[in-house]
Amino acid sequence: MEGNKSIGEYPFKVLPFEVDFREKLTLPHLTNYILNSAGYHADSLGFGIENVKVNNQSWVVSRLAIEINEYPKNGEKIKVQTWVENVLRMFSMRNFAFLTQDGKPLGYARSAWALIDKTNRRPTDLSKIISSDIFGNQPCPIAKVGKIPATEADVFETFTVKYSDVDFNQHLNSSKYIEHIIDSFTLYKFSKRDIKRFEIEYISECLFGEKISIHKKEDENGIFILELKNETGATICKSKVIFGEQTLNEEYIIK
Amino acid sequence: MEGNKSIGEYPFKVLPFEVDFREKLTLPHLTNYILNSAGYHADSLGFGIENVKVNNQSWVVSRLAIEINEYPKNGEKIKVQTWVENVLRMFSMRNFAFLTQDGKPLGYARSAWALIDKTNRRPTDLSKIISSDIFGNQPCPIAKVGKIPATEADVFETFTVKYSDVDFNQHLNSSKYIEHIIDSFTLYKFSKRDIKRFEIEYISECLFGEKISIHKKEDENGIFILELKNETGATICKSKVIFGEQTLNEEYIIK
Repeated sequence: MEGNKSIGEYPFKVLPFEVDFREKLTLPHLTNYILNSAGYHADSLGFGIENVKVNNQSWVVSRLAIEINEYPKNGEKIKVQTWVENVLRMFSMRNFAFLTQDGKPLGYARSAWALIDKTNRRPTDLSKIISSDIFGNQPCPIAKVGKIPATEADVFETFTVKYSDVDFNQHLNSSKYIEHIIDSFTLYKFSKRDIKRFEIEYISECLFGEKISIHKKEDENGIFILELKNETGATICKSKVIFGEQTLNEEYIIK
Repeated sequence: MEGNKSIGEYPFKVLPFEVDFREKLTLPHLTNYILNSAGYHADSLGFGIENVKVNNQSWVVSRLAIEINEYPKNGEKIKVQTWVENVLRMFSMRNFAFLTQDGKPLGYARSAWALIDKTNRRPTDLSKIISSDIFGNQPCPIAKVGKIPATEADVFETFTVKYSDVDFNQHLNSSKYIEHIIDSFTLYKFSKRDIKRFEIEYISECLFGEKISIHKKEDENGIFILELKNETGATICKSKVIFGEQTLNEEYIIK
């Protein structure tokens, strides 16, 4: 095994449709960078989506935590580094670093992935698939995804899963969960603060046409806990959103 | 002026989050390719967004027609060619060809762009900005965008313009208009047919928080006419959607 294969590095250029009204990369689009980088790296190591397909298996992301100090801006070229930190039986723990062209860290992410059987949805024991030889040894200085509490909050709003929301498995796309969560905040909120840390725990899949309710609560420390539920009341994901310090910027006066 | 500068050619690779449940590139994502290619080409000719910004101007797409024979699929590398066909006073008429790596045409698009003053929203006379030297001479074998009739239909559904919908001008992003239009069709419809031709006429801008209604009617020839209106009843865009022949595919049985 080549020494540097354990850490994959992929270039991205932030495109105009990927930025918000402040010209900063949005979290759902950063999540697409994360998912693509994970895919490229798994491919290069021989356990990518095409490799596991032959065994009727598929990778699903189970947890994700993203922490950003500085969001990349429209037109900026960044590098995404990714590596498997270790394997905990059913989960591959994959980390990410987001760097400027000069190597300055903009942020980090941690994720947990399961390899499931497409028919019975059961996870595979990953210790047979991923050897510790390929573990990357590099710091990821952000907290792991902790347990996210239930919200007990009323319905904040609802949405129906549409054509553009579903991926090639006919399920709500992983980055679209995040888009719906982020869209429960106003432009006014983003005009004052960035999301400093975002966590999501994917619990179950959603199909086309399902009506999903968003439940949202702010705790005493200004931390938002969100929960998405389907019509049977089952939780489909939980999320924790922590905004950073207020950085009032006159440039973003909301019209 | 170099001979080949009048036709720009840009490579794209279809990424997993850009495809639908059939693993085909979606129209909103193809529109992103169109908008990016137009931007790259205008930059290379000296009248890109950064060039016109110094005069407090911005490019806005006014009309778009896309016709696709074969949608590119997940992982496929395609080339987008773009050129200015001519200038009609207030509009730059820009065409596109979508090609496989081997140069086989997958489809074409036609668009009309205005260069507006950011303060008073008035269009500029483009004959002073774009010289006929740079016109590209290449066939674009699809019909021009015709006049789209009003629908007179009742409200089909509504949506509110959210954080992820707005671009860096705080307006509903051009490809998000298309996403909302396409999302008014079911997976079942797409499991049987592709959109063969799509037309949109952008009429006015939408801001964050606006509630938009979608009006939709199918005519006797199976052509869909859609209209988006804001809360004052003003039309913000009109669209015509023509599906192709039924190509039933057992692979896409909707779960």
